[in-house]
Amino acid sequence: MENFTFYAPTYFAFGKDTESQAGKLVKRFLGTKVLIHYGGGSVVKSGLLDRVKKSLEQENIPYFELGGVKPNPRSGLVYEGIKLCKKEGIDFVLAVGGGSVIDSSKAIAAGTVYDGDFWDFYMGKPIEKALPVGTILTIAAAGSEGSGDSVITKEEGMFKRGASGEAIRPKFSILNPALTQTLPPYQTAAGITDIMAHLHERYLTNSKDVEVTDRLIEGLLLTMIHEGPRVIADPNNYEARANIMWAGMVAHNNIVGVGRSQDWNSHNIEHELSALYDCAHGAGLAVTMPAVFKYVYKHDVMRFAKLATRVWGIQMDFDNPEATALQGITALENFLKSIGMPIRFNELGAKEEDIPTLVKMLCYGDGRTGSISGFVKLNEEDCTNIYKMML
Amino acid sequence: MENFTFYAPTYFAFGKDTESQAGKLVKRFLGTKVLIHYGGGSVVKSGLLDRVKKSLEQENIPYFELGGVKPNPRSGLVYEGIKLCKKEGIDFVLAVGGGSVIDSSKAIAAGTVYDGDFWDFYMGKPIEKALPVGTILTIAAAGSEGSGDSVITKEEGMFKRGASGEAIRPKFSILNPALTQTLPPYQTAAGITDIMAHLHERYLTNSKDVEVTDRLIEGLLLTMIHEGPRVIADPNNYEARANIMWAGMVAHNNIVGVGRSQDWNSHNIEHELSALYDCAHGAGLAVTMPAVFKYVYKHDVMRFAKLATRVWGIQMDFDNPEATALQGITALENFLKSIGMPIRFNELGAKEEDIPTLVKMLCYGDGRTGSISGFVKLNEEDCTNIYKMML
Repeated sequence: MENFTFYAPTYFAFGKDTESQAGKLVKRFLGTKVLIHYGGGSVVKSGLLDRVKKSLEQENIPYFELGGVKPNPRSGLVYEGIKLCKKEGIDFVLAVGGGSVIDSSKAIAAGTVYDGDFWDFYMGKPIEKALPVGTILTIAAAGSEGSGDSVITKEEGMFKRGASGEAIRPKFSILNPALTQTLPPYQTAAGITDIMAHLHERYLTNSKDVEVTDRLIEGLLLTMIHEGPRVIADPNNYEARANIMWAGMVAHNNIVGVGRSQDWNSHNIEHELSALYDCAHGAGLAVTMPAVFKYVYKHDVMRFAKLATRVWGIQMDFDNPEATALQGITALENFLKSIGMPIRFNELGAKEEDIPTLVKMLCYGDGRTGSISGFVKLNEEDCTNIYKMML
Repeated sequence: MENFTFYAPTYFAFGKDTESQAGKLVKRFLGTKVLIHYGGGSVVKSGLLDRVKKSLEQENIPYFELGGVKPNPRSGLVYEGIKLCKKEGIDFVLAVGGGSVIDSSKAIAAGTVYDGDFWDFYMGKPIEKALPVGTILTIAAAGSEGSGDSVITKEEGMFKRGASGEAIRPKFSILNPALTQTLPPYQTAAGITDIMAHLHERYLTNSKDVEVTDRLIEGLLLTMIHEGPRVIADPNNYEARANIMWAGMVAHNNIVGVGRSQDWNSHNIEHELSALYDCAHGAGLAVTMPAVFKYVYKHDVMRFAKLATRVWGIQMDFDNPEATALQGITALENFLKSIGMPIRFNELGAKEEDIPTLVKMLCYGDGRTGSISGFVKLNEEDCTNIYKMML
C-alpha cells in the first residue's frame, strides 16, 4: 500500500425529506447569500426547487437562481455564473441536480474567487480557494456530491476536462433517494454504470497488497449488481435507490481508492465520446469499459480473474485463468446490456470515420503528448484499436 | 435503510514516516499550545515521542507532556490533564498511542472547556464543545482515531462508560503502520479482535434493505481474515499491518454503519469484564462475542447464515440454515483462537462467582433499569446465561 492522505469533510444528510434541511445547512456552513444552480425541467416540475427556496426563505437567506445546466456541462454557463456571483456578492453555491449541476457549481465556486480564467483549473492548475458549495442530489451517478472533482466541457473545441481540489469538495450534501424515483430508466442505468466505472477505475491498479480497498470495491460492485436490476424492474423501489445512492458516494469520495494507483483510462476514452456526441456519460462508459478491459486484461490476468470470481461469482479456471478473466468482462457486458445500456459504438451515435478525430483529441488534448496513462499506458495505436473494438 | 447523517471531517496522513508531519498538522488545525498525551514505555523507548516533539519544535509550537495512560483509561488521569490544560492555556491535545490514549485525550479535550465534571458526558450528556484533538496511532484496534467516541473507566466503582460527540472527532490522525510492528502478538491479536467486533456490532441489525453497508462490512471482515494471520505469522509485515490499520479506521468511523440499527451488546457485556479484571478489551471481546452470538442467533437465523456463507465461505445448508449460522459462529471462534486469543472465561482471570456482580453492573449501571438493548434486548437472566456460556 502506498502512502496517502484522505480528507473528506462533507456533511451528509441522507434519507426522506432531507431537502427541507437545505436552509439550516447553508446557515451552518456560513452561507449568507446563495446562488441556486440547477438544470431544467424536472427540478422545477417536481416542486423540488420550490421546496429548496422555501427552506432558504425560512432561514431568511437571500438567493439568486441560475438554471440551464446541461448534461456534460459547458463553460459558457460557468462564466455566466461567475459573473453573477461576483456582481451580487454571492458567498455560497447550492447545486440542485445531478453530477453536471454539481460540477458546474464547483467551477463557478472556484472561478468566483479567482482573478484569471476559471478554465486554468481545468488545464491543470490546482484549485486552492473556492466559495463553499452545498448539493441536493437528484441522481446517483457521478459521486460529485462527495468528491473534490469537477468535469467541464469547453464549448470552443468541445474539450472535456477535469479539475480537482479540496476547496471544491461540498460542505454538505443532501441525499434523498426518493428524489431519484422519477428518473427515466435510461438515466438510472447510466448512473449505475457510472458508479460501476468509478469502482473499476480504482480496482485496476498496479499497487500491490491493497486487500482492504479491493474488498471494499468488490463489496460496492456486488451491491450494484444486486440493487441495479431491482431498481430497473421497479423505479419506485426506495430501498434499492437508497443502497445505490450511498454506494455511489462511497465509490467516489475515494475512501475505497486510497493507497493504490488507479486507472481512469476508460473515463478518458469515454470523455471524448460524450464531448463529441453529447451522449450520456454512463452510456459512453458502458460501451467503453468492456472494450478497454478486453484490450488490457493480459497486463494482470490474476486481477481480472479475481474480479470475475469475487464479484461475478465465476468459478476460477485454475488451468486457464485467462478464460476466467474474460468471462468476468463478458459478465459485466451482459449486465450492462441487461439494465438497458448500449454496448456498441453506433448506439451512441458514434461513427467509425470519427475515430482519428477522437484519438487526436484524446492523445493530444489537454497537454498530452501522444498517449494516456493509467493501469496500462495507451498510445495512439492502442486507443485506435480500442475505439475500433467498440464498433 | 433509515435516515441518517454522516460527518467525518478527520484528515488522515497514512503511511511510512508520517509522524514527521505532526507539527505541520497541529498548525493547520490551529493548535498553538499543545498537550502531548501518551501511555508509557514503548512510545518513549521507540523514539516516537522524541520525533513528535521535534516535529512540534520545528514549527515553534510549545508543548506540555502528560504520560501514564493505562489500558482501560481512568478518570484520575483525565482530571489531571484537564487541570493542566486549564492552568497552562493549552488549546490542542495530541494523543500519541492507541485507543486508550486517544479516548483519554478526548475526555481531557471535552473537560477542559466545560465548567462541570467531565464525567457528566459519560453519564449521557452530549459533548458539544472540546479542544481540538489530533492523534498519532500506535495500534490498529479501537478506531478512536476516526470516531467521535470515547470510553473511560471511573475508578470509583470501576464503571466503564462511553461518551460521544462530533466535537471530539479528531481533526487529524496520523496512521503509520510501521509504528505497530513492535507490538507483542497478543496486543496485535486483541486489536484485530476489536476491529472485528466493531464490524459485528454493526452487522447485527434489525434494519431491512441495508445491502450496501452489509457488503462493506463483509469486505472488511474478509480483509481481517486474510491479513490477521499474516501479521501474526510475521509481525514485521508492513503491508498486512497497513491493510489492518485502514480497515480498523473504516470499521469504526461509521461510514459502514449508517442507516441501520446496530447491536453493541457484546461491547457492553465485555466492558464489565475489562472494568472488573482489567483484561485487554479485545481479549474480552474474543470470549464474549461467540457466547453472545450463540445466545441470540435464532433472532435472525438468515442474517447469521449470510455472515457464515459470505464471510467464512461456508456452504449454505438450504435444508438447515440454523446449522450454517452456527458453523459461522464456530468459524469465528476458531479464528480468534488461531490468532492467540482467549475464548474462555478463566483465561481472562474471570470467575464464575463474580457473575452476579457483573450482571448487576451491566444491567443497572449507567442508569439502566434491568436490561441492555441492541440486536436483541437482554435482561438479567439472559446476561447471566451469556456469562455462564463463557465458562
